[in-house]
Amino acid sequence: MAPNAAVTARLAQFVADSQWADVPEGVRHQAKRTLLNSLGAAFGGCRDAAVGHALAVLQPFSGPAEATVIGRSERADALTAAFVNAVSANVLDFDDTHHPTIIHPAAPVAPALLALAERRPCSGRQFLHALILGVEAECRVGNAVAPWHYAHGWHITSTCGVIGAAVAVGKLLALDAQRLVWAIGLGANQACGLVESLGSMAKSVSVGNAPRNGIVAALLAERGFTAAATTLEGERGFARVMGQNADLSAIDRDLGAVWESAKNTYKPYPCGIVLHPVIDALLELRARHDLRPESVERVTVRGHPLLSQRTDRARPRAGREASVSLQHTVAVCLIYGRAGVAEYSDARVAEPAVQALGDRVEVQEDPSIPVEAAAVSLRTRDGRTLALEVAHALGSLGRPMTDAQIEGKVREHAAIAAPGAVVDRLIDAVWALDRADDAAEVARLSASHPNA
Amino acid sequence: MAPNAAVTARLAQFVADSQWADVPEGVRHQAKRTLLNSLGAAFGGCRDAAVGHALAVLQPFSGPAEATVIGRSERADALTAAFVNAVSANVLDFDDTHHPTIIHPAAPVAPALLALAERRPCSGRQFLHALILGVEAECRVGNAVAPWHYAHGWHITSTCGVIGAAVAVGKLLALDAQRLVWAIGLGANQACGLVESLGSMAKSVSVGNAPRNGIVAALLAERGFTAAATTLEGERGFARVMGQNADLSAIDRDLGAVWESAKNTYKPYPCGIVLHPVIDALLELRARHDLRPESVERVTVRGHPLLSQRTDRARPRAGREASVSLQHTVAVCLIYGRAGVAEYSDARVAEPAVQALGDRVEVQEDPSIPVEAAAVSLRTRDGRTLALEVAHALGSLGRPMTDAQIEGKVREHAAIAAPGAVVDRLIDAVWALDRADDAAEVARLSASHPNA
Repeated sequence: MAPNAAVTARLAQFVADSQWADVPEGVRHQAKRTLLNSLGAAFGGCRDAAVGHALAVLQPFSGPAEATVIGRSERADALTAAFVNAVSANVLDFDDTHHPTIIHPAAPVAPALLALAERRPCSGRQFLHALILGVEAECRVGNAVAPWHYAHGWHITSTCGVIGAAVAVGKLLALDAQRLVWAIGLGANQACGLVESLGSMAKSVSVGNAPRNGIVAALLAERGFTAAATTLEGERGFARVMGQNADLSAIDRDLGAVWESAKNTYKPYPCGIVLHPVIDALLELRARHDLRPESVERVTVRGHPLLSQRTDRARPRAGREASVSLQHTVAVCLIYGRAGVAEYSDARVAEPAVQALGDRVEVQEDPSIPVEAAAVSLRTRDGRTLALEVAHALGSLGRPMTDAQIEGKVREHAAIAAPGAVVDRLIDAVWALDRADDAAEVARLSASHPNA
Repeated sequence: MAPNAAVTARLAQFVADSQWADVPEGVRHQAKRTLLNSLGAAFGGCRDAAVGHALAVLQPFSGPAEATVIGRSERADALTAAFVNAVSANVLDFDDTHHPTIIHPAAPVAPALLALAERRPCSGRQFLHALILGVEAECRVGNAVAPWHYAHGWHITSTCGVIGAAVAVGKLLALDAQRLVWAIGLGANQACGLVESLGSMAKSVSVGNAPRNGIVAALLAERGFTAAATTLEGERGFARVMGQNADLSAIDRDLGAVWESAKNTYKPYPCGIVLHPVIDALLELRARHDLRPESVERVTVRGHPLLSQRTDRARPRAGREASVSLQHTVAVCLIYGRAGVAEYSDARVAEPAVQALGDRVEVQEDPSIPVEAAAVSLRTRDGRTLALEVAHALGSLGRPMTDAQIEGKVREHAAIAAPGAVVDRLIDAVWALDRADDAAEVARLSASHPNA
């Protein structure tokens, strides 16, 4: 590859040339964590109304029922399954976060590979390798256009996700560099999704399209469906049309030496990330002092100004709004001792006890507190003051979730969808994926088996 | 509708309230011309490699073979058929042009309705009404963001087309105003397509997605899949994210009084529109003087500077490049007496006689000549000089194609795909569509019947 070749071609060449042996062990392990976390998030989201609507609308057009719909008993063609599974993985914003860009890397990429693996058999190594390279491309393209891209109004998970999905599937298909250039180009031509849509179901349409259209892009490229050689960097290409003063060098700088996967993080709680240190503090206080909600007089939370700006929201009206409400979050932590998907349901929001306790919450801004930290002070009716500061929320780069904690997330959210024995096999299959002959086993194990 | 309601809501309300009786006869007739011309363009494009690749990639995922693929014998599910038919209609840039925006209005909208009509029976009036409103929404949203949008790098046919398709299908489904707001929002969230891709097959991916995703948007909205109320005008919505100083009032100004369809035009030749007056002049000169190509010494063409800027291209290497080559165009007009799809094939480009005659063509810029005009002067080997000026190219707003000429375009391009008798029935069916009980008959008649 000539040193002055354009960046689309350089990215494609890197992906084409990449060998499994080139990928460090830490990056391989992170890919398994990314996949497992994404499955957990998808189990959590797979009963959301957006998923139900998407399945109802797309199933009548579905081809062979060849691919698993995560956490459900329906099957669909690979394109439809990829769409629906990405919606499930991302709908609760409970999926992974690439810190430099706030891309959720797995939702657009993993569902594309899971669906295709059931159609075109591949080994676990091929699967992980493709996932790693897809996430790498997605996050690097994101780095090139961030932060302007999202601030301007682009839903970066969707826009960069479809490019990552095209690269991932392209690698799984073992496309050569020329065809990967086309796959990237065909992906970038399908980049869309508006920030205006956050808070409505519309967010899920571009997220669902990302893996679906990434598969189409790679399959078209495989057949010789061409795209411009300069789709990323050209005068009317992705970075200039959807970026401002984009840093194109971020796409190929230190490729193979620095891996973006290392900056991926996982959420323990299905709510706004600024709330996470507050939850950590409350659960710890509750356990340590065996607190009962009726004994709580007042709760005062001090945090970074973003905490109050984003979550000072009394009496939310629905579960989705509650996931960015400090008042609701404090109340469910103290009443239920947890902050899981069930605690952000419409039913919990309507409970008088949750609402009443939420009314006793106060928030204070303190710019000296980092965004991943918080200080909680709690006064009891019998006159005690209990306080705790959390420096690094669980799931932050400073205190990543452990493998066991990610497993716990999968178990918890799979509980409705899949019996325990199957979840154990699924978790084992992900950890052993680099030694598996058939990657599709992971997809199959993520289905719901209501009659099993 | 409150006068201060936002423009997404106002557009949706207009579409929901619109009655067939509100649509002037001229607009109704223009819709039939738009549909017929689009079918002709699709017949011309349906054997293109991009169409073949798209079918080969998408058919394995196709559901019930319920919808016609124009000009071909395959059938597919409605979403796949809509994708492929839009590619066929637009791949040669031989489709209609809305002058203020250079949107090709029909390709994203008509295939969505044709495919859905085979699934959900509707009357011809319902079909035409939906087509009219979809084109209206598409072009008005385009007016709001033009000319910056295309100049910045957005393939406006794709980006505005998916919104038009969502509106059209939404009207066919008789959605109420709230659901049309969602359909518009879900369409806008799928708006994509980069100008960088023109000249490669990648153009066709966003064009094909436009009707496909417009159908999905409307069907999701029908089920209650929500979108922001302000997707077009919001701070992070379509017009601000994909426009600059967009004129939002263009979306609803004089709705129902001024119809964008009236500004739609149709191309008689499958090549760059600046070449059209040159072709008119050459065909007229050839016929008038019974010219033989070997008698031509030199051809001089004077035209608007855009003519030389866009088409002064000697010895093109492929058919697609030839469609923006003045030299090639002059040569085939003189040799073959026509400028149809066959004259822009790779085979014609390779002919020595075409190349040799092209070498004898000269172009002169004359800013006083309008872009839809040209002056051709031709010197013969026996010393004559033959000259002709064309003021309004056939197909321009100043000299629209007649209904009979559009019929001729359909007949010519359907020749390979469909026997003559079927084409007659198809043409009759379009002209009589406002009295038809089953609009899908038009779709079915556009199939190829190789064994008929």
